Amino acid sequence: MASIVHWLLPKEEKFFQMLQEQCSNVVDGANEFKNLVNNYNEMDYSRKRDFIKKIKDIEHKGDNLTHKIIGILDKTFVTPIDKEDIHRLAVLLDDVIDLIDSTAERLIIFKIDKIDSYIKDSTDVVLKIVKEIEQGVVGVSKLKNMNQFYINVHTLENKGDDLYRGALSSLFNKKGLVDIIKYKDIYDFLENITDKCEDIANVIESIVVKHA
Amino acid sequence: MASIVHWLLPKEEKFFQMLQEQCSNVVDGANEFKNLVNNYNEMDYSRKRDFIKKIKDIEHKGDNLTHKIIGILDKTFVTPIDKEDIHRLAVLLDDVIDLIDSTAERLIIFKIDKIDSYIKDSTDVVLKIVKEIEQGVVGVSKLKNMNQFYINVHTLENKGDDLYRGALSSLFNKKGLVDIIKYKDIYDFLENITDKCEDIANVIESIVVKHA
Amino acid sequence: MASIVHWLLPKEEKFFQMLQEQCSNVVDGANEFKNLVNNYNEMDYSRKRDFIKKIKDIEHKGDNLTHKIIGILDKTFVTPIDKEDIHRLAVLLDDVIDLIDSTAERLIIFKIDKIDSYIKDSTDVVLKIVKEIEQGVVGVSKLKNMNQFYINVHTLENKGDDLYRGALSSLFNKKGLVDIIKYKDIYDFLENITDKCEDIANVIESIVVKHA
Repeated sequence: MASIVHWLLPKEEKFFQMLQEQCSNVVDGANEFKNLVNNYNEMDYSRKRDFIKKIKDIEHKGDNLTHKIIGILDKTFVTPIDKEDIHRLAVLLDDVIDLIDSTAERLIIFKIDKIDSYIKDSTDVVLKIVKEIEQGVVGVSKLKNMNQFYINVHTLENKGDDLYRGALSSLFNKKGLVDIIKYKDIYDFLENITDKCEDIANVIESIVVKHA
Repeated sequence: MASIVHWLLPKEEKFFQMLQEQCSNVVDGANEFKNLVNNYNEMDYSRKRDFIKKIKDIEHKGDNLTHKIIGILDKTFVTPIDKEDIHRLAVLLDDVIDLIDSTAERLIIFKIDKIDSYIKDSTDVVLKIVKEIEQGVVGVSKLKNMNQFYINVHTLENKGDDLYRGALSSLFNKKGLVDIIKYKDIYDFLENITDKCEDIANVIESIVVKHA
Repeated sequence: MASIVHWLLPKEEKFFQMLQEQCSNVVDGANEFKNLVNNYNEMDYSRKRDFIKKIKDIEHKGDNLTHKIIGILDKTFVTPIDKEDIHRLAVLLDDVIDLIDSTAERLIIFKIDKIDSYIKDSTDVVLKIVKEIEQGVVGVSKLKNMNQFYINVHTLENKGDDLYRGALSSLFNKKGLVDIIKYKDIYDFLENITDKCEDIANVIESIVVKHA
């Protein structure tokens, strides 16, 4: 596994390039989401809507990339098991950008008027973990040693968990009942994003396992 | 893929017939659920309970179909990968009827006394999407061109999402706090059903991918 | 399938031994969780924290076991499909202990001061179902007849569902609004544990299916 010998055939390489494109789109979405969150408390409604629209556009671009990958996969001979994994990664990356989009939308739908420090910190973790995933997809296509990748994703996911726990434990002290429901929902979404990234790391791990 | 050549061996065909039976049972459940929802506001408690029981019976029939498929799969030689996909479809179809049953039950458990327009509209989407899934399972067994199927499921899932967003955004204006919690839970369930149908579409897509 | 002929190669047997170790760690966690729940109402805060810590240690041990399995799997030649299933079981068993840990933590985070009968009864079901899973992992490695295993897991999962339904239906009568939110969250977690165990049973079923 530590070897750097190239294992991908040209066709498979093409898919990993497309998966990387999908990853970089997810990172774009996480970046815009961070911009929204960091400036949310000072923005007026129409500026917020602009950000939501920008993120929605990135989500649509993600849809198209996902279907492009699956469509080409459909017409290409790759070994069945590789096909399954590529398919699974494409679907999971699509889930991540969907979740980022849904979280952003919820801020508006719920008429949240103040981003709290948990949402801010957790958005940082989201951006960092999707950047790790991007590196992981590059790494697996080169059969790089992935130990550091697993550790990084795991560490970030744990940090996300800690933040989530902290947020839950202060949730019931500070907020009114309607806010408890709204913020809890948003916290749950943010935690789901990091969980989903761990699922991606697991698929990457299983690809490595099968090609070791 | 556009070809209509038959790729299934007789044994695999038998499983797809059983999966179709499972699908048509899911459609039955969605139909009864729609009947319950459409007439809910005018029914008395015992009529509601009758519907819940009818749906529960369909759910039990679904359990039996699922276990029958898996039991026969158990004793039959099919290629390992086909086995896995058939198994996965059987489990997911079982999840869909379970979710329909759970959503119906929640109406009673939560003593919901008024079905709102979101629940009604979303139930329509559920019925349409399970009918699409039924067609998809028929289609994949004949290796039909499945592009329209993906588009339809995706479109319905998007419509479900839009309805869900609308429901969430009016939820906090209109209802009391206890109702917010109850209706949100039911909205989440309804949205899960369409999500699960998208998962089924993904498995169908991956079967097509592997047999292309 | 009823035969007791040994199908595992020595290398695969080693993995099933490690999975059994993981299972017995999950059972340890469920046992401590039951001790916590059964004595919760009489314990002071620092005793509760001791239990939470004990469970957290078991969860960490679970992390290490999971990564050990995946790490060795990484360097070992087993057939690709077996690798995938072993990987999936390791990840799911890790999920179960994570969920037990999260549920226990929530009792403290939410400052729950009284364990109700649903939490108690449901914790009993959790302990029973993880013990079944432990037997299932032993059983599949010996290709024992697994029918009774499926029935037991299914029966326990149904019992968990019934308890959950009962808990939901009394939730809105008895508790204040903040408690409704807190207890519902804990009920959902407990139900997720039994659901996840059913997922494990499904993977075991699919292993049996493929090796039948």
